[in-house]
Amino acid sequence: MRNFTSIQDVDDVNILVSEAIELKKNPFLFENLGKRKTLGLIFLNPSLRTRISTQKAANNLGMNTMVMNLDKEGWALETEDGVVMNGHKAEHIKEAAAVLGQYCDIIGIRSFPKLENREEDYSENILKKLISYTGTPIISLETATRHPLQSLADLMTIKELSPNRRPKVVLTWAPHIKALPQAVPNSFAEWMSDSNVDFVITHPEGYELSDEFTKGAEIIYEQDVALQDADFVYVKNWSSYNNYGKILSTDKNWMLTNKKLYYTGNARVMHCLPVRRDVELASEVLDGQNSIVINQANNRVYAAQAVLKNILENNF
Amino acid sequence: MRNFTSIQDVDDVNILVSEAIELKKNPFLFENLGKRKTLGLIFLNPSLRTRISTQKAANNLGMNTMVMNLDKEGWALETEDGVVMNGHKAEHIKEAAAVLGQYCDIIGIRSFPKLENREEDYSENILKKLISYTGTPIISLETATRHPLQSLADLMTIKELSPNRRPKVVLTWAPHIKALPQAVPNSFAEWMSDSNVDFVITHPEGYELSDEFTKGAEIIYEQDVALQDADFVYVKNWSSYNNYGKILSTDKNWMLTNKKLYYTGNARVMHCLPVRRDVELASEVLDGQNSIVINQANNRVYAAQAVLKNILENNF
Amino acid sequence: MRNFTSIQDVDDVNILVSEAIELKKNPFLFENLGKRKTLGLIFLNPSLRTRISTQKAANNLGMNTMVMNLDKEGWALETEDGVVMNGHKAEHIKEAAAVLGQYCDIIGIRSFPKLENREEDYSENILKKLISYTGTPIISLETATRHPLQSLADLMTIKELSPNRRPKVVLTWAPHIKALPQAVPNSFAEWMSDSNVDFVITHPEGYELSDEFTKGAEIIYEQDVALQDADFVYVKNWSSYNNYGKILSTDKNWMLTNKKLYYTGNARVMHCLPVRRDVELASEVLDGQNSIVINQANNRVYAAQAVLKNILENNF
Repeated sequence: MRNFTSIQDVDDVNILVSEAIELKKNPFLFENLGKRKTLGLIFLNPSLRTRISTQKAANNLGMNTMVMNLDKEGWALETEDGVVMNGHKAEHIKEAAAVLGQYCDIIGIRSFPKLENREEDYSENILKKLISYTGTPIISLETATRHPLQSLADLMTIKELSPNRRPKVVLTWAPHIKALPQAVPNSFAEWMSDSNVDFVITHPEGYELSDEFTKGAEIIYEQDVALQDADFVYVKNWSSYNNYGKILSTDKNWMLTNKKLYYTGNARVMHCLPVRRDVELASEVLDGQNSIVINQANNRVYAAQAVLKNILENNF
Repeated sequence: MRNFTSIQDVDDVNILVSEAIELKKNPFLFENLGKRKTLGLIFLNPSLRTRISTQKAANNLGMNTMVMNLDKEGWALETEDGVVMNGHKAEHIKEAAAVLGQYCDIIGIRSFPKLENREEDYSENILKKLISYTGTPIISLETATRHPLQSLADLMTIKELSPNRRPKVVLTWAPHIKALPQAVPNSFAEWMSDSNVDFVITHPEGYELSDEFTKGAEIIYEQDVALQDADFVYVKNWSSYNNYGKILSTDKNWMLTNKKLYYTGNARVMHCLPVRRDVELASEVLDGQNSIVINQANNRVYAAQAVLKNILENNF
Repeated sequence: MRNFTSIQDVDDVNILVSEAIELKKNPFLFENLGKRKTLGLIFLNPSLRTRISTQKAANNLGMNTMVMNLDKEGWALETEDGVVMNGHKAEHIKEAAAVLGQYCDIIGIRSFPKLENREEDYSENILKKLISYTGTPIISLETATRHPLQSLADLMTIKELSPNRRPKVVLTWAPHIKALPQAVPNSFAEWMSDSNVDFVITHPEGYELSDEFTKGAEIIYEQDVALQDADFVYVKNWSSYNNYGKILSTDKNWMLTNKKLYYTGNARVMHCLPVRRDVELASEVLDGQNSIVINQANNRVYAAQAVLKNILENNF
């Protein structure tokens, strides 16, 4: 593949997942593949897990990494065309992207939505302009609408634990004190709908995701019903898509507890982290035997490594 | 050479430019030259292009790089002697420089002028003290009065496109909303005056640069006259040197447009970036065939690499 | 050893110091030992010297380093158990530590005391939780109560200059404008008490350190008496332990000057840096022949390298 910004960029998802699982067993098998190649990581928003896991993945392949925290260092980017640049934005994405594209062989970008204007966020303007102007392969490190490196790690985690059967996977909304993007659930829904799983989404009314991402998923508004016989429960908060960016519920009954878990098929519990204990997810679940969130986070390294390996092999 | 802080440090400018052009063709030819050597990059002010291009140059030579954003991390440095340090500055440059000189083999420093006190800025106090106290070769990453890595990349860009003739090069002042340092135009003037070019500077009255840098340059106050038959037009804003740090003009007629470009000899247009579109330079020019700003930025890598290579070969 | 958080973690201090001295002579002798290994450096507080020297030490051993400035990037960590996480802290140390422990082979942590609640600071809650939850060896980069990498460099510096005799070492309190932690003097006292030196501490009344660290040291309240015949004088400010975190004295007579130095046995003068000139320590001393603060800072690299080498050899 050329870019990795959504599942549509992937030629064969099964092969990519298998490769990630293989790399986990032997992370240094391709440690010279990325020699003399530079990965540029552009963060327009903070990152910890994504930066560290992607940097580690690049190291494992012998690549150099250069990190640019554009929210702090450097300068604010203008992303609109035809603007007279007499405000606080010192550089246009046209120049910034073209220059960074010369310094780097592959570029990763993180750019969160503002959650104010749905049309603007969902246009993925920054991502699209970066792809137009850099001339290098682009990897999403979570953009306004998707977080595909997370979803690949999620699918890899499910496949590791259910290699030979079709599991039931439930994505359940959880309460949170902040309005969060839909990127992780959008992306997870998109990947699950394309995989060999029975996929159910449960959330309070009003929290429907864009049907662009949920085609093929069953949506159930009663959490208890949805959780029945689940093999995997993915816990995640998001803000409303229809009433864009708004918090419609803080109902504590939606928090996953051991009691709720009891009605599943002894389901494994997933979360992309960071998780707010006893707000999104009960401590008793996180500290219990069913939680696989730490292994899921570990798989971020090998998901990123499989993506980088694929791009290196197909573009250089 | 030992240090790279101005053109005076360079033994033979032509050889250095040729070397940069050669490194661009074969960036990894000396990838073991910098093995076991550490480049320390100290930023007292923000940097994006300079940091990334210099880091890339060091990588290409096999060096390790350690970045210190002293404006954010660490602590504020005292640079005056004889001060009782009971204020907010936690460390004296004497100790900081001596310590970093032990941890690094070559040190790069960025230190912008404050544009308040000309004598203080032009004394280059911080740069001089760093050279005194570190014991290592020092590279300027843009200091109060000069930006020599930029100028070397600029000259390299001109030589690439005019290898066999003496071109006419025009440095034109451009409007801007902020008061900017004179470092880039000072340095460009200094390098051009020493090169095989016909060099003309044009700016509104009151924007004369210090004649320390403009010896040998022709200064013309009418932009249209200056631009006639130009082969290269370098567009750049700066604040006044005589009325120090002040903005004396925001006249939009000084912005380079396609109409103005028409009167040149089909000139190539240069800018050190970041550029404010339709304030400093018309979008139609930046997006047109005559703009070479992206290639000019790319050459920053090879300019830095030629400098590092020269210092590595002559000091270790 | 497994962790390096205090002198109690070290199997044989003499061997560790000898190893650091040997590594200084030949820093690249083990440059493949850390190949494929990743050192994660977590900073909950700013760092310059410690970050750079530890990064250099890791480079010398062939390790990759990943820096996490959790005070700026990423998010605030919850360190208490049983808290409903509905405040500003986005992640619990349980998850953060477990995840980072998967991405890194060794983790270094800097976590300063708040100097508000002695019991809380001296409980070393964060350090202990990190050790519990990461599953990797942990190195202290200065925590609430100790700075063992500094103390190892300090002892190494003393041994380099006094290889064959038992020197008199005096730790003297110095004035400062801020309330500083006791970590450096605690740690230095702990290491000196365990070494073949005559160890004296001098400070104004009220500045007694916790006797957990000063067992075996002689405490003298008259600085002039304490300094007599000293071979090494370690100058350092700290805030009160008994009247916790308070500044009890700013008496300028406690600043070490050439006049005071005259009464020692031509003592070498040490300080962990950064030092406030003419507040903690007279410029005449820092600029004189007896100051060894720059070499002491240089030894930070080899102290860290000896620690990393030991951990690499014993845990992988």
